Amino acid sequence: MLTSILLSAGLALMGAGIGAGIVAIGAGLGIGRIGGQAMESIARQPEAAGKVQTAMLIIAALIEVVSLFAVVVCLLIALNAGGLTF
Amino acid sequence: MLTSILLSAGLALMGAGIGAGIVAIGAGLGIGRIGGQAMESIARQPEAAGKVQTAMLIIAALIEVVSLFAVVVCLLIALNAGGLTF
Amino acid sequence: MLTSILLSAGLALMGAGIGAGIVAIGAGLGIGRIGGQAMESIARQPEAAGKVQTAMLIIAALIEVVSLFAVVVCLLIALNAGGLTF
Amino acid sequence: MLTSILLSAGLALMGAGIGAGIVAIGAGLGIGRIGGQAMESIARQPEAAGKVQTAMLIIAALIEVVSLFAVVVCLLIALNAGGLTF
Amino acid sequence: MLTSILLSAGLALMGAGIGAGIVAIGAGLGIGRIGGQAMESIARQPEAAGKVQTAMLIIAALIEVVSLFAVVVCLLIALNAGGLTF
Repeated sequence: MLTSILLSAGLALMGAGIGAGIVAIGAGLGIGRIGGQAMESIARQPEAAGKVQTAMLIIAALIEVVSLFAVVVCLLIALNAGGLTF
Repeated sequence: MLTSILLSAGLALMGAGIGAGIVAIGAGLGIGRIGGQAMESIARQPEAAGKVQTAMLIIAALIEVVSLFAVVVCLLIALNAGGLTF
Repeated sequence: MLTSILLSAGLALMGAGIGAGIVAIGAGLGIGRIGGQAMESIARQPEAAGKVQTAMLIIAALIEVVSLFAVVVCLLIALNAGGLTF
Repeated sequence: MLTSILLSAGLALMGAGIGAGIVAIGAGLGIGRIGGQAMESIARQPEAAGKVQTAMLIIAALIEVVSLFAVVVCLLIALNAGGLTF
Repeated sequence: MLTSILLSAGLALMGAGIGAGIVAIGAGLGIGRIGGQAMESIARQPEAAGKVQTAMLIIAALIEVVSLFAVVVCLLIALNAGGLTF
């Protein structure tokens, strides 16, 4: 019986870990694309650097919100699953 | 008996964690593409920065709604599955 | 007996979580592509920004409908599976 | 016996959730591509915006029909499998 | 014996749900590509919009038929497997 208590905690922790990793892929793909093309844009029109930087931060913040929310879900799972083992 | 109560909680938590991670990939791909091409557009037509920024936020908000909804589903699963263990 | 009642709830919750995540990939791919190319279009023809924005919202709404419908299916599964445990 | 009634319900609900997610990928890929290139087309020929928008909606409706049909299949599975437990 | 009847129903429903989702990917890829390039064609030759739209619908109908047929197969599986449990 104690066996599968720990088995389930293991499954949950595995999911939380893999999930947290996948979140980083998502944030990296999204913010990376925004940032990379912002660099090119500032180089093409240096006098528009202010406008590009403002828009860059606004749109990247949207990805940041979703990603942090998802990491918090994974953190909650990790803490709860850690509590399953007692 | 208590065995698989906890095994099921583990499976559910694993799914919630991986699901939350996949949500971030979706938001990253979508908002990243929008944001990246908005950067290039502002650089190409700096005087159209206002119009681009307005349209950028409207369309990104659609992805944000679906993504936050999906993260909330994962959060509900994580909290319910945490409650399964009692 | 009570055993697999809860095992099935775990499987269902795992599917709901992963499914909700995959929905976000779909919405991100679709709305992101629409939005990204709308940005470029506004930059190429700033005077056509109104027409582009109208068409952008009409076509993005189609993806939004399917995605929200699919997230609601996942939410139903999550709530029903949570109810399986009683 | 009651055991696997519920195990099967879990498997079915897992399939319904993941299936609903995959449907959204399909709709996103298809309608996103149509919409993205419609944006570019309106920018290239703003006076043809009406024709492009008409054709865009006709062809996107075909994907919408298949996607909504498939989501309804997943919804039916979810409701039937929820009914399996009684 | 009754056990695995019901287990098999679960597996069948899982397959039907995931299958319906994959159908939508196929329809999205195919009709999306046709529609996307039809948009560009109308923009390049707006006076040929009628001819492009006719050909677009003929070829997209071929994908539509196969996709709806495949969704109906998934629907039949879902209904039959639901009937297995009685």
